[in-house]
Amino acid sequence: MTESLTRFDLPQSAIPTRWYNIQADLPRPLPPVLHPGTRQPIGPADLAPLFPMELIKQEVSQERFIDIPEEVREIYKLWRPTPLLRARRLEKALGTTARIYYKYEGVSPSGSHKLNTAVPQAFYNKQEGIQGITTETGAGQWGTAISQACNFFGLECYVYMVKVSYQQKPYRRAIIRSFGAQVTASPSDTTNCGRAALANDPNSTGSLGMAISEAVEAAATSGGKYKYALGSVLNHVLMHQTIIGQESMLQMKRAGDYPDVIIGCTGGGSNFAGIAFPFLRDKMVHGKDIRIVAVEPAACPSLTKGIYAYDFGDTAGMTPLIKMHTLGAGFIPPPVHSGGLRYHGMASIISELYDQKLIEAFAVRQLEAFAAAVTFLRAEGIVPAPEASHAIAQVIREAAAATAAGTSPVILFNLCGHGHFDMSAYDAYTSGQLTDFEYPEEAVATAMSALPKIDG
Amino acid sequence: MTESLTRFDLPQSAIPTRWYNIQADLPRPLPPVLHPGTRQPIGPADLAPLFPMELIKQEVSQERFIDIPEEVREIYKLWRPTPLLRARRLEKALGTTARIYYKYEGVSPSGSHKLNTAVPQAFYNKQEGIQGITTETGAGQWGTAISQACNFFGLECYVYMVKVSYQQKPYRRAIIRSFGAQVTASPSDTTNCGRAALANDPNSTGSLGMAISEAVEAAATSGGKYKYALGSVLNHVLMHQTIIGQESMLQMKRAGDYPDVIIGCTGGGSNFAGIAFPFLRDKMVHGKDIRIVAVEPAACPSLTKGIYAYDFGDTAGMTPLIKMHTLGAGFIPPPVHSGGLRYHGMASIISELYDQKLIEAFAVRQLEAFAAAVTFLRAEGIVPAPEASHAIAQVIREAAAATAAGTSPVILFNLCGHGHFDMSAYDAYTSGQLTDFEYPEEAVATAMSALPKIDG
Repeated sequence: MTESLTRFDLPQSAIPTRWYNIQADLPRPLPPVLHPGTRQPIGPADLAPLFPMELIKQEVSQERFIDIPEEVREIYKLWRPTPLLRARRLEKALGTTARIYYKYEGVSPSGSHKLNTAVPQAFYNKQEGIQGITTETGAGQWGTAISQACNFFGLECYVYMVKVSYQQKPYRRAIIRSFGAQVTASPSDTTNCGRAALANDPNSTGSLGMAISEAVEAAATSGGKYKYALGSVLNHVLMHQTIIGQESMLQMKRAGDYPDVIIGCTGGGSNFAGIAFPFLRDKMVHGKDIRIVAVEPAACPSLTKGIYAYDFGDTAGMTPLIKMHTLGAGFIPPPVHSGGLRYHGMASIISELYDQKLIEAFAVRQLEAFAAAVTFLRAEGIVPAPEASHAIAQVIREAAAATAAGTSPVILFNLCGHGHFDMSAYDAYTSGQLTDFEYPEEAVATAMSALPKIDG
Repeated sequence: MTESLTRFDLPQSAIPTRWYNIQADLPRPLPPVLHPGTRQPIGPADLAPLFPMELIKQEVSQERFIDIPEEVREIYKLWRPTPLLRARRLEKALGTTARIYYKYEGVSPSGSHKLNTAVPQAFYNKQEGIQGITTETGAGQWGTAISQACNFFGLECYVYMVKVSYQQKPYRRAIIRSFGAQVTASPSDTTNCGRAALANDPNSTGSLGMAISEAVEAAATSGGKYKYALGSVLNHVLMHQTIIGQESMLQMKRAGDYPDVIIGCTGGGSNFAGIAFPFLRDKMVHGKDIRIVAVEPAACPSLTKGIYAYDFGDTAGMTPLIKMHTLGAGFIPPPVHSGGLRYHGMASIISELYDQKLIEAFAVRQLEAFAAAVTFLRAEGIVPAPEASHAIAQVIREAAAATAAGTSPVILFNLCGHGHFDMSAYDAYTSGQLTDFEYPEEAVATAMSALPKIDG
């Protein structure tokens, strides 16, 4: 009976009641976050203009588990628990000896894992009487999620959308607006840093780093009316995603298997953290022999080519300084279709785990990712987001290696979203017009040379 | 505990093992299907050039239940059972006394209920040694589903896509091509009827009726290499969808409720049939007091404004003659965004049920449908397909009536697909540029005057 099952579902009562805070189990504490002006460690008061106090507490908490508010779990019930599937048809298509499983986060109303953190972020803002949220979006996954979450709790929502995406992704714009959010192309003339960028280059198509600067400025200068929300990188954001891994553990148990390898794509690191951290606890605390593999685009390889250093999260240098694997805050990644992976830095926790050799990292090029995506969709039916396709490419590499070695590892990966809003990229790929990008060595070197000089 | 549950999930073992064939329970047999040339009742041999024998048998079967092949159920497991949810947040938004439930078919890889029939159709063709399938698609939901199903079973797939959709929906084209199908804009120069249409009007943007003619011709002239597949209207297609209603019955039981009203949108009738027929059996055979409501676009109202008469399924008069509610095979509906509902006729079974007053029908205008869609998505998070929004509009009407009357009916509707590929329509709606269409009285009168003259 179990043998023929493809999907391992959980009842709604199995939605986790707590987030797992990996900070409690790290081998050493995270390096302190520094004030962008004084370059001294910051305290909660420094973050108060940007975030509600509960999220600031979560950001620095050393508690191993943090309760999920009942109001948040109620919203989670709209799509959670998400399915975990055995990719039997993919295994067959690859002719592999490996057993492949995937957790599918694309069933959320926003189409990706981003809603897992958007909902609690909106909730805590609402609870502390905030009127609205400012944020940025690149590919639009985060903008969609936060606009939905704000809508659920009756918050205003202001999304600074990277101008090139604003122009190229009218459907993302439309879905965000459908949920009542206001979308502004960035750089815009509504902020000081936006106006400065436009003065410098009136034709600027923007970048994620610039959109963050605008959203941060809009919140910081609102006199407390608005706060800012980020869809990845920060500790509390990664923690909210751990419900993915917690559910996966229960589902793998139902499948009668335990993963030897866990794979996720990494931009800022949140979907990877979501599936990996609960299993990393098994590895760090219970000594489980398990490989945890991050996969990034070769065009924006912050783990495999970046350095572990203090850097800004944004272009204008308005955010605190975080020690992270970075390619330099001034680096503008080539226009790969995986907008969600086009970020110069990596979450502090993931950078630290990588530095401690608790996780591995590999880079995948755009064409290999799309080839993997098409192999996957023809086998399993689901059209993956280009971001998730990087994870799939690594799965296919691992499966081939296992077959060659005659081993049968259990591989689990996070299919963090669907690609329904990325069909122009598939169109380009299937018609042979998609190009690869070399690793932009010079641009990275230039950006790195401008890194703030800080010891530690 | 049950009170707080939003979603009523079923284990995979609950995927139905049989389709329900409503023909066994109809008050009187369906009127015979007539040969387009002789206008005499047709037999299986007449349909053999177009369909595999197993589907022809199902088309005329009087067996109440037909076993679902294990190979088909294996594929169903990729996304079934689909969720059934209590729309608590919608109820609250409407301030209604009604209890509202919806079955969500948009979780299928193709994004709609269409895959439920595409899979068995591809399976039976494969089993009978057919090399490939020809078909048409309008909005692209069916084209997506059949291309996926053909891909699953290793069949070639040739999709004639209505030219206006081909041009306006490049993403649908892209997803169909990603699954390895060949997409041709219709009318095309690859068929006699297509060439005739182009000779008549070189700038023709096509119609569903014309695309059907091309696909039928391509199969009929292939010497048995290819067969034709239709995504709605036919008896066997509607029957394949009854897994929706069968699952819904189990899920409503889990919810501790039974529907007083069941609502579905109708183009050809398949998603409506899917949710309604198993409950109709309760009504017809077990005397349950339950209303079954079909909802169609006011711009293409085949039930509420059409007549019950023999007509062709296509424009060129190549298909058999079916007695159905029709606006005339020559009628080209106004370009509403619900491409899946732009069909001149209605499934024979549904027409008969309507004639027998076993079901009701209402028409909804485009703007009311989109207003309902936005109300729904803001409450429940899911972006509905424009087709499904017609059902939602009727749900909102029924809920308002119940509130006014102080009653608490249980309303169940079929959310047959998501609107991720219809965001341009939402874009037009949210920016105030979407227009309504009057009922095209003259065009219908013209088309009706050309109906074939057949008694019965």
